[in-house]
Amino acid sequence: MEYNKAVSDLRVGDQVEGYYALGNILLKKSSAGKPFLSCQVSDATGSMDAKLWNYTGPAGPEDSGRAALLRGEVTEFNGSLQFIIQRLRFAGPQDEFDPAALAPAAPIDPGEAMAETKDILGSMEDEELRRLCLTLLERHGEGFARLPAAKSVHHAFLYGLLMHTLNMLRSADFLAGLYHEVVHRDLLLAGVLLHDLGKLWEYRLSPLGLVTEYSVPGDLLGHLYMGAREVENTGRELGVSPEKLTLLCHLILSHHGDPEYGAAVVPMCAEAELLSLLDRMDSRMEIYAEALPQTQPGRFPLRVPALEKRVYRID
Amino acid sequence: MEYNKAVSDLRVGDQVEGYYALGNILLKKSSAGKPFLSCQVSDATGSMDAKLWNYTGPAGPEDSGRAALLRGEVTEFNGSLQFIIQRLRFAGPQDEFDPAALAPAAPIDPGEAMAETKDILGSMEDEELRRLCLTLLERHGEGFARLPAAKSVHHAFLYGLLMHTLNMLRSADFLAGLYHEVVHRDLLLAGVLLHDLGKLWEYRLSPLGLVTEYSVPGDLLGHLYMGAREVENTGRELGVSPEKLTLLCHLILSHHGDPEYGAAVVPMCAEAELLSLLDRMDSRMEIYAEALPQTQPGRFPLRVPALEKRVYRID
Amino acid sequence: MEYNKAVSDLRVGDQVEGYYALGNILLKKSSAGKPFLSCQVSDATGSMDAKLWNYTGPAGPEDSGRAALLRGEVTEFNGSLQFIIQRLRFAGPQDEFDPAALAPAAPIDPGEAMAETKDILGSMEDEELRRLCLTLLERHGEGFARLPAAKSVHHAFLYGLLMHTLNMLRSADFLAGLYHEVVHRDLLLAGVLLHDLGKLWEYRLSPLGLVTEYSVPGDLLGHLYMGAREVENTGRELGVSPEKLTLLCHLILSHHGDPEYGAAVVPMCAEAELLSLLDRMDSRMEIYAEALPQTQPGRFPLRVPALEKRVYRID
Amino acid sequence: MEYNKAVSDLRVGDQVEGYYALGNILLKKSSAGKPFLSCQVSDATGSMDAKLWNYTGPAGPEDSGRAALLRGEVTEFNGSLQFIIQRLRFAGPQDEFDPAALAPAAPIDPGEAMAETKDILGSMEDEELRRLCLTLLERHGEGFARLPAAKSVHHAFLYGLLMHTLNMLRSADFLAGLYHEVVHRDLLLAGVLLHDLGKLWEYRLSPLGLVTEYSVPGDLLGHLYMGAREVENTGRELGVSPEKLTLLCHLILSHHGDPEYGAAVVPMCAEAELLSLLDRMDSRMEIYAEALPQTQPGRFPLRVPALEKRVYRID
Amino acid sequence: MEYNKAVSDLRVGDQVEGYYALGNILLKKSSAGKPFLSCQVSDATGSMDAKLWNYTGPAGPEDSGRAALLRGEVTEFNGSLQFIIQRLRFAGPQDEFDPAALAPAAPIDPGEAMAETKDILGSMEDEELRRLCLTLLERHGEGFARLPAAKSVHHAFLYGLLMHTLNMLRSADFLAGLYHEVVHRDLLLAGVLLHDLGKLWEYRLSPLGLVTEYSVPGDLLGHLYMGAREVENTGRELGVSPEKLTLLCHLILSHHGDPEYGAAVVPMCAEAELLSLLDRMDSRMEIYAEALPQTQPGRFPLRVPALEKRVYRID
Amino acid sequence: MEYNKAVSDLRVGDQVEGYYALGNILLKKSSAGKPFLSCQVSDATGSMDAKLWNYTGPAGPEDSGRAALLRGEVTEFNGSLQFIIQRLRFAGPQDEFDPAALAPAAPIDPGEAMAETKDILGSMEDEELRRLCLTLLERHGEGFARLPAAKSVHHAFLYGLLMHTLNMLRSADFLAGLYHEVVHRDLLLAGVLLHDLGKLWEYRLSPLGLVTEYSVPGDLLGHLYMGAREVENTGRELGVSPEKLTLLCHLILSHHGDPEYGAAVVPMCAEAELLSLLDRMDSRMEIYAEALPQTQPGRFPLRVPALEKRVYRID
Repeated sequence: MEYNKAVSDLRVGDQVEGYYALGNILLKKSSAGKPFLSCQVSDATGSMDAKLWNYTGPAGPEDSGRAALLRGEVTEFNGSLQFIIQRLRFAGPQDEFDPAALAPAAPIDPGEAMAETKDILGSMEDEELRRLCLTLLERHGEGFARLPAAKSVHHAFLYGLLMHTLNMLRSADFLAGLYHEVVHRDLLLAGVLLHDLGKLWEYRLSPLGLVTEYSVPGDLLGHLYMGAREVENTGRELGVSPEKLTLLCHLILSHHGDPEYGAAVVPMCAEAELLSLLDRMDSRMEIYAEALPQTQPGRFPLRVPALEKRVYRID
Repeated sequence: MEYNKAVSDLRVGDQVEGYYALGNILLKKSSAGKPFLSCQVSDATGSMDAKLWNYTGPAGPEDSGRAALLRGEVTEFNGSLQFIIQRLRFAGPQDEFDPAALAPAAPIDPGEAMAETKDILGSMEDEELRRLCLTLLERHGEGFARLPAAKSVHHAFLYGLLMHTLNMLRSADFLAGLYHEVVHRDLLLAGVLLHDLGKLWEYRLSPLGLVTEYSVPGDLLGHLYMGAREVENTGRELGVSPEKLTLLCHLILSHHGDPEYGAAVVPMCAEAELLSLLDRMDSRMEIYAEALPQTQPGRFPLRVPALEKRVYRID
Repeated sequence: MEYNKAVSDLRVGDQVEGYYALGNILLKKSSAGKPFLSCQVSDATGSMDAKLWNYTGPAGPEDSGRAALLRGEVTEFNGSLQFIIQRLRFAGPQDEFDPAALAPAAPIDPGEAMAETKDILGSMEDEELRRLCLTLLERHGEGFARLPAAKSVHHAFLYGLLMHTLNMLRSADFLAGLYHEVVHRDLLLAGVLLHDLGKLWEYRLSPLGLVTEYSVPGDLLGHLYMGAREVENTGRELGVSPEKLTLLCHLILSHHGDPEYGAAVVPMCAEAELLSLLDRMDSRMEIYAEALPQTQPGRFPLRVPALEKRVYRID
Repeated sequence: MEYNKAVSDLRVGDQVEGYYALGNILLKKSSAGKPFLSCQVSDATGSMDAKLWNYTGPAGPEDSGRAALLRGEVTEFNGSLQFIIQRLRFAGPQDEFDPAALAPAAPIDPGEAMAETKDILGSMEDEELRRLCLTLLERHGEGFARLPAAKSVHHAFLYGLLMHTLNMLRSADFLAGLYHEVVHRDLLLAGVLLHDLGKLWEYRLSPLGLVTEYSVPGDLLGHLYMGAREVENTGRELGVSPEKLTLLCHLILSHHGDPEYGAAVVPMCAEAELLSLLDRMDSRMEIYAEALPQTQPGRFPLRVPALEKRVYRID
Repeated sequence: MEYNKAVSDLRVGDQVEGYYALGNILLKKSSAGKPFLSCQVSDATGSMDAKLWNYTGPAGPEDSGRAALLRGEVTEFNGSLQFIIQRLRFAGPQDEFDPAALAPAAPIDPGEAMAETKDILGSMEDEELRRLCLTLLERHGEGFARLPAAKSVHHAFLYGLLMHTLNMLRSADFLAGLYHEVVHRDLLLAGVLLHDLGKLWEYRLSPLGLVTEYSVPGDLLGHLYMGAREVENTGRELGVSPEKLTLLCHLILSHHGDPEYGAAVVPMCAEAELLSLLDRMDSRMEIYAEALPQTQPGRFPLRVPALEKRVYRID
Repeated sequence: MEYNKAVSDLRVGDQVEGYYALGNILLKKSSAGKPFLSCQVSDATGSMDAKLWNYTGPAGPEDSGRAALLRGEVTEFNGSLQFIIQRLRFAGPQDEFDPAALAPAAPIDPGEAMAETKDILGSMEDEELRRLCLTLLERHGEGFARLPAAKSVHHAFLYGLLMHTLNMLRSADFLAGLYHEVVHRDLLLAGVLLHDLGKLWEYRLSPLGLVTEYSVPGDLLGHLYMGAREVENTGRELGVSPEKLTLLCHLILSHHGDPEYGAAVVPMCAEAELLSLLDRMDSRMEIYAEALPQTQPGRFPLRVPALEKRVYRID
């Protein structure tokens, strides 16, 4: 019996016990009429089909996304590995396990990334904007740091939003220097930090922190509105000048660049323009980073649904 | 000498004194090098070109839209009437004149319209939504009632927004009955009342109350965001349930129907769908109402820029 | 043995005899090489998979949509109910059964709806247009009343077109009052009545009256052209003035509002504009009415293919 | 004094008398307050600005497009030629002049073109379609032959529609041979002949036969609908089979190829597809033929508004 | 035992030996764990599913598209014919078989078609263009003649590009006569011949000559660029004037007509305009020619994916 | 008399002699019939209307853009300064003046910029790509450095392309570090250097080096094709591997990002994606840099035609 063995290391015949995430849970009946539970067993390293025979509940679809203590054996079915669950108990508050081991996470050190984020923000000269950014980070930083940046498409893993934000802050810092004659550095940095703040309320998260669906306010209001409103209300509370809040909220409301991509207004200043291009740039580069390992360099292209086209990997 | 004679009644040779609105003020020089002021003299009934010879200031373009006490004479130039100003003094707080006489206004009785508006809203069964609507009317009702609904295109006159809102409330009341199985009447009525609330902060107004330009927040944030934020903040203050506020803000944020027409999100419930159609319907009908008097029934079509097409007037 | 039991009431073990509609008929062979007929058994209340074992004909796909007298038993297969047919005879002229019981129908009383329709039309002041409408109703009223308004998407049931038309007439009546300064009431009402007249020739109908496919003229000419042509030819016969016929045909040809939605010309008068908005409004509300019962209020949204988006049901 | 001298031959100092077309007639006043008539004098060879001093009527804008007997002298103003009218009398039934000399006409012999048109149609094997085509030519041939094919853009001269139709018939004849396996020659030829038949009722014509504006039915119904309706009514009268009429009307209703270019339905058979491509091809080639003489081969491109792009002339 | 029997003639029970093309090769395991090869057996007349039981290699997916010598028997499975392979050997250089019999080919005589192509090109008056065309035909003619014109959609068979090019040359020859005033015949003919030249490097071909995929340069550069570059380099080598090469390359780079259809530049001369219309015309007609045999004349329409619509076959 | 005084320093009454650029040259007649030359006098600092009275030639429109030695006096007309030319002689080879003083130039030191460009390129590790870049710079560097990056819109001044290219190289260098896991640095740098190489042949230049019009090949082939072709031919000559040339030409052909913006193919690798975003970013920032000085910070927005929207300047 092995404990908490990584899913990517499981082989036929392994006897396993440990904590895993269960996804896509369904209650079914075999052709012989026997009830069973079908699901996906996963951790940060991968996932595998699983069955629990002669099971009638109480677990069901609404438990998808939860962590559970499993005991079972790895078999093969139709050429693929299959985890036959022998015992299943959903994890509760008393269980000790590392949630980070059960969900894919960004390839960054969250602590260092947050520290670098704060360093860059700390270098802002405008005291009002700096205080606003740091206050919002204080209030929401923990949730913000752990949040995936998306449900799928790109950065759909823990700390995804932090990784996306930090990459953009680094580029913004460089470009604010290159284009210092037209770009107000502090406004740009604040806009980058806060452009996706509203995602805090846009998603339903699984117990392990991944996005399962949009929340009702996420669907009906969108993260642009929710982020701008939070920034504006907090800014008023802190006494930030209305003019600066208007500009900062403009950056948030316009950062999708074009109404057909979801922008509530079109970018109308150089900082908003640059923010929307930086957002597109980092999203695109991450889509490539996630897609390219699936193909061979220099030969056949790979169809990437998020880009609606085929892409090549350069040798 | 006649006093406060209506612009539409002025004829060549009239000697006039009275209060008029001055627009499009420019300081020019004649080919002989003499300075003069060129402007438009207007009131609620019409407008006319005007000149004030040998004038070097202090009035200038920034005074456009203000009311002034004028004395002068009506002449003819190149086949058109022209008002030769002999004396000009801008109106101040001490001047007694009827601003309503100087700016075009909606063909409604504002008091009755506001009363009918409140009657319809008073019939809402949901106490939270009713209280929210009436509170917002109390706080903003005066400005709301006087506001034009647009800078041009349609309802671009005093009380235009009230007229537009009341027409939509009447239709919404009827249609909420016809489609009572799918439409939540109170939500629809609240959405109709508040859909353009953000226009309170979207425009720069002339001293007489007409729209001269978009305000900075109007351009950078738009009336959808500003209206939804005000509704949400007020609703929280009044203890309205978050679910209702989300729905109501959704109606506001989606009422342009389609991102390419400025909607921040697409309508996702029957009430939002209906609101966006009602808004388009009343706007279109008012565009026709303003355009058709300019043409003859049943003969030549009229090009209407706001519709980007030619339209016919039915006999 | 139970007779004509409603499909929605059938349970495992029921022995049934009665008239049902057969749909999607296919002749197949089992893996053991035995021939059988597979189909759907349905009535106005619902539908169920069915099999007739050891069947080689003569029925086949071309009989889909016909009514038949069935005897059989309800069983379960793979967790769903299945009707095992023991005897099948297609209904002929001599069979006595209620076709209305076999096909879904609009939730209206057709007689009352037609009477209200005629009442509204009878109130038209323009004698020529009134006579034209009533004559067309006389000639085509029966087929018109029973016709579904669509193949799918919305109002795809018996009396669907009548229900759609009457709802629009009610709204048109109200709005013609509200916008009486720009809208010619009689022209609008006539346009509403006749806008989908051409659908009489646009569909292939099943024996029970549902739309199975587009007819050849339906595909090649469309209901806009066919409706306008019928109205114009009938109008000429009745001596209606050419000017009125041109306007009325314009309303028909433009009622899809935009060429990309199938309009042959764009609306060029207030009545045509209003008609196209009323058509969209009633279609949208009916799509919501048909979709919302499939979801729970206030929680998860429902993807509605006809709207190409997800929608929420308000509590 | 020279009589009926061609406009393109007029020079400063010429004394002229003759018949010319008057266009763009306006009644104006000079800066000195003297009334005069301003217009364009034109014939088939060109046009020139003209003035009639001290003129107060009765001629006016509504006489634009009429022929008149003029006497006057050619002068120069601001570097351009100007015709100073000394006597003006509009032409009536008693006047003898060649209207063809006053309006630009297609560079074809109308008689020969009509004969070739009939020859090609006479070669159709399907007796019903041939009879339908020849009957429609008999009834409308004269008006059809003289009609410009457009108000501007291309073929906007007398006999333009005949020239356009004959060119397309020649190409259709060739292509029906090349693609004989997929194209029904008689249907294609009939569709080509009749595709623009509805233009007979789409325009307002000047007394000399040029298009001045769209007619009311032209705007409200369009030439696609009016042509198809005329073809269908005539075909029914002649006993042509409904199937053939449906196909032929489909070609007419779809010949603009795409709804965004005005097609009422999209082409759904090979003949309709080919017709829409032939129409575009001949229109494009004629636009080039009219535009290229205005530029030099091989050097600077010419902006052609009808194509919304610049084009080159090949040496 | 029958030899090289056409696939379209195979019947249950046939014992066959012969050369066939193998496509879509997959190595699988049965539910009982037995390995087998699954593929498609095809020749110019049709294709059929096939199995080779107890097979573990060495053939695999990378051999798809190759010819092989097969021995086997035709059986039936689930109502369809199935070829049970008993012996399989891929064809090598020593094998004698007619590749043309194994791949679908255009319904033309390639030799005659090439001769007619050269005849038309030989009639060009411009010596430089004629020499350029004939030189390119000499260098690339063999590959050019055999190439399919596409991977699917239309002309996706051997000699497809030659058939497509010749049809267009015939039409171009006719239309250059009809529009001789605006069209430079030699330039048009040269453009037609060379418009798809770049397809020589755009595809990966199977051993039998059919298109299996786009090549890397095909994806990354496109056939417009590659064709124009080849024409320009060859033209410089032959001393063709730069002006003519610019025009000819323009025809190639613009022949898709519109950037949204892949044109690198928009057509800017009459010849480029005509070329793009001819290309669309011949493609469309061939799509119809390939689609129509699949449906019945005059009844139900056929959905044609390449046209994104349903089409009718005329009786 | 002052010599070569900067246009921006000229005042009423100045007597001037010096070299200036003449633009928009027209030969006109006064209302009194006197011939004169009208033009624009400009240098790198600004421009002014000018007249040369009683002038009949030989200078004319075709001399626009040339430098000339002028003597004259500055006067005022209608409130604007006007240069009255007393003597005019176009500059020839013998004239000694600084062309850079007569045409606006990028605010960079061209020598330093070129050196930094070469430094960055010299740091490439791939020897083939580095050699290709440096060879192309050697052959075309002088023309490349001086070229404006556009006819108008942005960077439309001398050394504009160099400034644009260097800015992009700096950003590319930074981003190649940030995204080193997905981006091949050398390929990206080479693509940035060469993406606009084809502009060398796309424009007609005035004698002073500004863009007056597109050249014939510029219009008919575009700079994407011409640049890729030059790169590929040079690369073959230098023995660069075909695979690298394909990738590099792909970057050039796709750098407009989207076919609707002129891309010949869509970007299909991370480097091409990044290049197209960098190009858009630097163009946008330069448009802001050129537009913002025309407006006041924080108040009224400025309509920028190149962006098709109004923009704000942040304080």
